Amino acid sequence: MKIIDGGVCAAKGFKANGIHCGIRKNRTKRDLALIYSEVPASAAAVYTTNLVKGAPLIVTKKHLENGVAQAVICNSGNANTCNANGVEIAEKMSSLLASELNINDQDVVVASTGVIGQPLNLQVIADGIPSLCAGLSENASNYAAEAIMTTDVVAKEVAVEFTVGGKTCRMGGIAKGSGMIHPNMATMLVFITTDAKISSSMLAQAIKSDVQNTFNMISIDGDTSTNDMVTVLANGMAGNDEITTDGEDFNEFMKALNSITVSLCRMIAGDGEGATKLLECSVTGAKTLKDAKTVAKSVICSSLTKAAMFGADANWGRVLCAIGYSGAKVNVNKIDVAFKSANGTISVCENGSGVAFSEEKAKEILLEKEITILVALNDGEYSSKAWGCDLTYDYVKINGDYRT
Amino acid sequence: MKIIDGGVCAAKGFKANGIHCGIRKNRTKRDLALIYSEVPASAAAVYTTNLVKGAPLIVTKKHLENGVAQAVICNSGNANTCNANGVEIAEKMSSLLASELNINDQDVVVASTGVIGQPLNLQVIADGIPSLCAGLSENASNYAAEAIMTTDVVAKEVAVEFTVGGKTCRMGGIAKGSGMIHPNMATMLVFITTDAKISSSMLAQAIKSDVQNTFNMISIDGDTSTNDMVTVLANGMAGNDEITTDGEDFNEFMKALNSITVSLCRMIAGDGEGATKLLECSVTGAKTLKDAKTVAKSVICSSLTKAAMFGADANWGRVLCAIGYSGAKVNVNKIDVAFKSANGTISVCENGSGVAFSEEKAKEILLEKEITILVALNDGEYSSKAWGCDLTYDYVKINGDYRT
Repeated sequence: MKIIDGGVCAAKGFKANGIHCGIRKNRTKRDLALIYSEVPASAAAVYTTNLVKGAPLIVTKKHLENGVAQAVICNSGNANTCNANGVEIAEKMSSLLASELNINDQDVVVASTGVIGQPLNLQVIADGIPSLCAGLSENASNYAAEAIMTTDVVAKEVAVEFTVGGKTCRMGGIAKGSGMIHPNMATMLVFITTDAKISSSMLAQAIKSDVQNTFNMISIDGDTSTNDMVTVLANGMAGNDEITTDGEDFNEFMKALNSITVSLCRMIAGDGEGATKLLECSVTGAKTLKDAKTVAKSVICSSLTKAAMFGADANWGRVLCAIGYSGAKVNVNKIDVAFKSANGTISVCENGSGVAFSEEKAKEILLEKEITILVALNDGEYSSKAWGCDLTYDYVKINGDYRT
Repeated sequence: MKIIDGGVCAAKGFKANGIHCGIRKNRTKRDLALIYSEVPASAAAVYTTNLVKGAPLIVTKKHLENGVAQAVICNSGNANTCNANGVEIAEKMSSLLASELNINDQDVVVASTGVIGQPLNLQVIADGIPSLCAGLSENASNYAAEAIMTTDVVAKEVAVEFTVGGKTCRMGGIAKGSGMIHPNMATMLVFITTDAKISSSMLAQAIKSDVQNTFNMISIDGDTSTNDMVTVLANGMAGNDEITTDGEDFNEFMKALNSITVSLCRMIAGDGEGATKLLECSVTGAKTLKDAKTVAKSVICSSLTKAAMFGADANWGRVLCAIGYSGAKVNVNKIDVAFKSANGTISVCENGSGVAFSEEKAKEILLEKEITILVALNDGEYSSKAWGCDLTYDYVKINGDYRT
């Protein structure tokens, strides 16, 4: 498996585009994205568990009941959530696009991100769809990646090449992380494309299983959005024998999928609102997988730990505290904690008690942009990772102060 | 029932003191507190559920097995947590105090708050105990309240007078909220005294039941501390018939206790680290009490809601979002949300969708120091309240930036 360029257009038969249609006032900011497959593709998705759901998710869920899709349309600047006519608008977006592309209405994945509780102006989308489709290109993954950004600082795309049953396959993805347009909440959207041939039921199994250890292990601020969605389209154009069961081919597919999702997770976490650092919590030695995940997530979600990492402060007591209240079954007296970055690794806590360490060396390690918090529970065989970011002045600024 | 002065010394037979003994470097900051009852008192406590527990809690728990205590000693500046010899130190603090006061070793409640993972210097405490005891006074509740502060901005004390079986009783309390001394975590400590006569088993029942709706409904930053503890001492000197069962007397006692605990909750939440505002989330119309509490707590804990309140931004989408992911069973299409303060009340969401409102009026309401977020679920009979504070630059500064 190797990393390649091309994002969601890396896989054979996929094109993309992103334009400014007018949902946003800033004319230099693209706000409407399109991903298109030359042929109908197996499709699967996972959705937010928030009871308050964006209208596009309701429509997409219905469209994906048959496991087939051919295009993804997504606007930024308005989440189309908590609007009385939201479902109607999302359905209309789908049918306008389907008609322009001459594909089936039901084969459209529709998504929105941005302001909630404000009417979405369908007219500007309708007006933009012809040029959106006309501009479809194999080199425009970055336009789509840009068009789904809200306050993301960095456009997020990644692609890999891998082999299934002797055939070269490709897979790529784009994502938006936590962003904010007033009055909005963080929304995560991920669109993945591949030319590998796989049945829609195996594709659904793959993505459902993968997100448990990837996107479900990110936290920027603990607020589960109303519009989170991850979708995968697999159009089969790589020509491999269709993956219809577990086995070696499926394993290769899962490996590729996991490399895409982990990359996007790290990008989303590192570009969290106001973030200056990517944090990874790596837990080993847990009694159960659930305990490992609970501990990793608890450390990553701890506001006190996140603020300490912002200040490059080796405040391991906060890590131990977050483990202690996580709900996981741990033996406190066996826990080791260390901090790691490109500048080295430093042990700060052994057997649940502090050890002498160089504050200077710790500072040097924690001033890096990517920090791993190593937690060894020394009480079992299970491990897990979670990703997040530091808590900064800019998080507060973006989310509280920008109107005053 | 009426509010009176005197804090933990309001009740008959209680004295207190607070001195600087030298745990802290700043000589103007008191760091050792004492509360003393002339006679042995019924005593009960509740403790943090964090698996990482401060050593003093372990010792206090043992001492309160017989339901009797006569003194409380508490230092700030060091949490005596995650130290190899922590239990030994806490036991020694107790026995030194007991010996000076000529009371039973087992009748001492011992507590610590401050830095974790650093050795606590017993010598300065031992040296301070004689003058700590010599200075005991009926007018020094405020000295004790000051001595338990870490980065609390305001000393927290309250007292009430009430009647049980025709006898005038008094109850008072002091508390410390979320504070920070490097490298520490927020720790909440509450000490309550009363001269009401009540059996230790009824006292334990009273405090266990009360905290479910008071201290367990506060959140500053979602990090459950290792040293949280609430204790109540009831010395019986008011002369009422001992409360030994449920009934009218117990109800009066519970009402007084609840007025003390709610007052302290509001003080703790309003003085959360970096806070500029006290937030109360008041939920009505839930199907179950659990749902009501889950929703109230989820809104109060939402970083996005907290940041919006800091910015006086009527961002109700974040409130709805936090309700949606809380895990409570709610019908999203029935939810109403309003914001309330001394400047009035404004409805911002009805039946799960936004309503037109004056942004100017909303701003005026949200610029106040005490904000109530009113959530009407309109789906049942249960209600609940939770308390917290806004998320501010200063929270990040206190917890991340203060060493750099």
